[in-house]
Amino acid sequence: MSGLLGSIKGPQDVKRLSVEELPRLAGEIRDVLVDSCARFGGHLGPNLGVVELTIAVHRVFDSPRDPVVWDTGHQAYVHKILTGRAAGFEALKQEGGLSGYPSQAESDHDFVENSHASTALSYADGLAKAFKLRREHDRTVVAIIGDGALTGGMAWEALNNIAAFKDLPVVIVVNDNGRSYSPTIGGLASHLSSLRVNRRYEDMLDFVKDKIGNVPVLYDALHGFKKGVKDVLSPQVMFEDLGLKYVGPIDGHDEQAMEAALRQARDFRGPVIVHALTQKGRGYSPAENHDEDQFHSPGAFDRATGAEKPKGRIWTNVFSEELVRLGKERDDLVAITAAMLHPTGLNAFAEAYPERIYDVGIAEQHALTSAAGLALGGMHPVVAVYATFLNRAFDQLLMDVALHRLPVTVVLDRAGVTGDDGASHNGMWDLSILQVVPGLRIAVPRDGDRLTELLREAVEVTDGPTVLRFPKGPVAEPIEPVGRLGQMDLLRAAEGDPGVLLVGVGPMAQVCMDAAVLLDAQGIPATVVDPRWVKPLDEALVLAASAHKLVAVVEDNGRVGGVGDAVARLLRDGDVDVPVRTFGIPQQFLDHAKRAAILGRIGLTGQDLARQITEAVAKRTSSVEPARR
Amino acid sequence: MSGLLGSIKGPQDVKRLSVEELPRLAGEIRDVLVDSCARFGGHLGPNLGVVELTIAVHRVFDSPRDPVVWDTGHQAYVHKILTGRAAGFEALKQEGGLSGYPSQAESDHDFVENSHASTALSYADGLAKAFKLRREHDRTVVAIIGDGALTGGMAWEALNNIAAFKDLPVVIVVNDNGRSYSPTIGGLASHLSSLRVNRRYEDMLDFVKDKIGNVPVLYDALHGFKKGVKDVLSPQVMFEDLGLKYVGPIDGHDEQAMEAALRQARDFRGPVIVHALTQKGRGYSPAENHDEDQFHSPGAFDRATGAEKPKGRIWTNVFSEELVRLGKERDDLVAITAAMLHPTGLNAFAEAYPERIYDVGIAEQHALTSAAGLALGGMHPVVAVYATFLNRAFDQLLMDVALHRLPVTVVLDRAGVTGDDGASHNGMWDLSILQVVPGLRIAVPRDGDRLTELLREAVEVTDGPTVLRFPKGPVAEPIEPVGRLGQMDLLRAAEGDPGVLLVGVGPMAQVCMDAAVLLDAQGIPATVVDPRWVKPLDEALVLAASAHKLVAVVEDNGRVGGVGDAVARLLRDGDVDVPVRTFGIPQQFLDHAKRAAILGRIGLTGQDLARQITEAVAKRTSSVEPARR
Repeated sequence: MSGLLGSIKGPQDVKRLSVEELPRLAGEIRDVLVDSCARFGGHLGPNLGVVELTIAVHRVFDSPRDPVVWDTGHQAYVHKILTGRAAGFEALKQEGGLSGYPSQAESDHDFVENSHASTALSYADGLAKAFKLRREHDRTVVAIIGDGALTGGMAWEALNNIAAFKDLPVVIVVNDNGRSYSPTIGGLASHLSSLRVNRRYEDMLDFVKDKIGNVPVLYDALHGFKKGVKDVLSPQVMFEDLGLKYVGPIDGHDEQAMEAALRQARDFRGPVIVHALTQKGRGYSPAENHDEDQFHSPGAFDRATGAEKPKGRIWTNVFSEELVRLGKERDDLVAITAAMLHPTGLNAFAEAYPERIYDVGIAEQHALTSAAGLALGGMHPVVAVYATFLNRAFDQLLMDVALHRLPVTVVLDRAGVTGDDGASHNGMWDLSILQVVPGLRIAVPRDGDRLTELLREAVEVTDGPTVLRFPKGPVAEPIEPVGRLGQMDLLRAAEGDPGVLLVGVGPMAQVCMDAAVLLDAQGIPATVVDPRWVKPLDEALVLAASAHKLVAVVEDNGRVGGVGDAVARLLRDGDVDVPVRTFGIPQQFLDHAKRAAILGRIGLTGQDLARQITEAVAKRTSSVEPARR
Repeated sequence: MSGLLGSIKGPQDVKRLSVEELPRLAGEIRDVLVDSCARFGGHLGPNLGVVELTIAVHRVFDSPRDPVVWDTGHQAYVHKILTGRAAGFEALKQEGGLSGYPSQAESDHDFVENSHASTALSYADGLAKAFKLRREHDRTVVAIIGDGALTGGMAWEALNNIAAFKDLPVVIVVNDNGRSYSPTIGGLASHLSSLRVNRRYEDMLDFVKDKIGNVPVLYDALHGFKKGVKDVLSPQVMFEDLGLKYVGPIDGHDEQAMEAALRQARDFRGPVIVHALTQKGRGYSPAENHDEDQFHSPGAFDRATGAEKPKGRIWTNVFSEELVRLGKERDDLVAITAAMLHPTGLNAFAEAYPERIYDVGIAEQHALTSAAGLALGGMHPVVAVYATFLNRAFDQLLMDVALHRLPVTVVLDRAGVTGDDGASHNGMWDLSILQVVPGLRIAVPRDGDRLTELLREAVEVTDGPTVLRFPKGPVAEPIEPVGRLGQMDLLRAAEGDPGVLLVGVGPMAQVCMDAAVLLDAQGIPATVVDPRWVKPLDEALVLAASAHKLVAVVEDNGRVGGVGDAVARLLRDGDVDVPVRTFGIPQQFLDHAKRAAILGRIGLTGQDLARQITEAVAKRTSSVEPARR
């Protein structure tokens, strides 16, 4: 690493730089960010927006003695660079390389590894309380939270609590990156951006009050993009209602202004909001000018033009297009997203049926219970969400939707191993925890054709919720069934001796097909079925299983409590004690790497599966069976 | 039913009464409430507080065309009485009788059956959006939410969204029942109570602003009871920041004033807050004067004196006392409750160590992540919560606590079948969904001695979270072990032929002991173990199981994905294919009844268990074993 960055081993080196050197440092940082993200993809836009803010934080505070908590962690790239990890951007998010989120294993400067939003204030509350109890009164906790993350309910819960302790030194930096205000209200946005710390807060408030009459119109024009003005208006006013001290708004790209505000906040020794206005994508014009999301998290792209490398057809596209078709056929279909309109593919539905789309903010709990209300009122809501984020609304799905037997379809994108975004993005929990929900049906398509077919079946259900889940990335090649067993697709029938029965869940059907060929070659006939609906399981599975030596269930989900366990239970309850072996993701938090690399490492390949099943059959044949004694 | 109530078959009859008759109606309603709750227990205090409010709602709105949603449902008794169900209070919460929560099966006037807090505004948002899309423009949605429920994050998520649609006719009645302000700030509380609709809101605001300087002092004095003033201050101001119309504060016991405010709100045809000040326990002096919680939810009591029937020693007492002892030994222990200080028994800890207790409001998400922060900062937090409410913080336990390997102990009270409070209070999910959490350890004590023992073991763990769960009601009689198998307690060893192995989870150990005696008598020798820690399971179980004909696992938890499935998986993974049978709660939402009655109905008794195991053994012996073909 050459230039100023070559000398930055940690925050103390950042503090040593002269004020005149800081713009050069910022420039070098932006170079690293753009270069690395162009090669590997990454959260470019958010990090370009916090360059000066992060420099200021590390010049004013004493990390790690003063913990710095990022909400969400995807805006911590600059923090990583300033804490001695610039070189790591040579292999950002690559196996064995730097994580795309904070990581305790990488640095003592990283406290919270999470990628789920709206948690930082709660962490900060706890950290500050701990320091107080331990009489470490000189420590300050710094939490940096985006305006989007503030729409999550738990951020409000935390503010309520932090405000109750006037002696907790918590500095809350609101990184208000302007993306909550849509381009259509640019006048307001630009006015806010022009405000500086020397302008009185009241000036802005007056301006805002003048505009408040327009709010409904603006919202209506935005078709579900409804966070905007509330975030602009509510932070200051609400924070002050809660009795929190407020500093701002500050131009988050004026490093010296940020330092001044942070020093003031630090010296207050109580909870303070520092409201920083920043620009997502700042300093890289393709990002600044990218209308949709300022390069929030592009894949690899051409550095000169900003053009993303083509992705090919992904699962999300299939869902997106089919939902538009369904929306035309049925005017009772409505769609809901939690601040993920484009990533979930609901933007196409939004364009086609603007009155039937709701973007609720980063608020999965509300998404599910509002869907329950819509269903009670006679609509059929489709809630599209990343699989890992549904955990935020488990209680709402269980109590508010399922207990009331309401027809809500939840579509889980990024289910199973996602890979480079690390442990908290893998969608490896849903097929387990959702098993407990009474009356819920779960479908797992193995390919694009099955996705459209199962989505249609799901929205036809009227007496309870349905879930449909599919992975990240390119849609799988179709596998045509050779027959049906009940509602299951028979994909391959062993000839003669029935041998082993392979149950392939969703895209794992292909892995089972691969394994079956290898097993056959070793004299173990293998039949493959795809249950299509994994909850409830088809009773035909009991009969099919009872005719086999061994049943193997393969799923792209945690091994614990998933479809494998459900198949085993179904057989036990049917008094069919045929041995079952279950294959899935080991129940651990996975390090980041490419999806294919992880699947290989955890044995979810045809070859590995065939080997393990061969061993299981061999053991079973040679061992004394305990139950026969 | 005599008196005016005799003529009330539904809201239309309430509308027909003259204004002069309404106080008599209110009196008769209070009689029914006190009489019924004295006999069966129930949510007396909250319902005494909403008598006039509910009368006004049903005189102004047209239920069920205008849906009325209660948050939480425990304040819907009066609503039940006015919708033709007064007679049902003769068997409140009894098997086959009236539910303690709204129930779609009971009445078309009931929409939301939930007992988990803070959901009503999201439901209302969805209902109103559905009516708008269906062009049913004359319908209004009424949501009644307590000030406590407003502290839940999802209520804020909903407000953010409701405020974005100025044409949604949602009337939000904030039932501010004065219990959020503690007796120590009685001056403020009584001032607020004296305000009436004809007083200008600004008057109150001025008063409140005068007092704001005292807020920190008040909070500090309250030791964790921190919701008070925020709730008083924030609703109005925050609602107006969001652009919501606000009417109030109204005296919620002035029926005519309430009617006037509700009419005004109804005619606005957009979202409106109606802020009603009510008194919990109103009209029954033992409740009004009950310092702790105004008879929030007493068990059966003496109507004349209000004296509750003694409960005997319950599981909560054992936990409560042991935690105080531990708090003396270790000054790094802190305790957290989500608005359940007394019900979880943490009040004793709070009295002993007032600086180490945090009541975070109805905010389970924040409770867990704040605990994560406290643990990061070097403390060991104990979060005590009802088992069913942990579902609200599943993601936070998984991502914020477990991913970071933080030593947080979560204590689940009311785990398993709770009974009379109905489907949403049963704690039948935790042993299933928590199985997926990497690094989490789960302990289930079978009796009080084990509770103290396991709690001590749990708080000694330093490398990850622990969960301890126990049921509602009288603590179980101790069962002394006859030996140990690894970390498991051997409670009973079969002589000679090993026969069947019974694995009794927590209090189900006693059920297994009962069954063992019956099985022995039928010539099936039975060994009983209590695993104590059910996650991870002890490997000694594999060896023990392999020596038996059949393994039966019994748990007071949903059958799906619980300890039974975990035992079966452990054996499969160890290539031990001994048949396993699992016994627990059928995976359904259970109707309300006494805990013992439900356990009997679902077969979790010694007798039923012995019968089922005998049958399983017989089938196994007589049937052709499919796997042997």
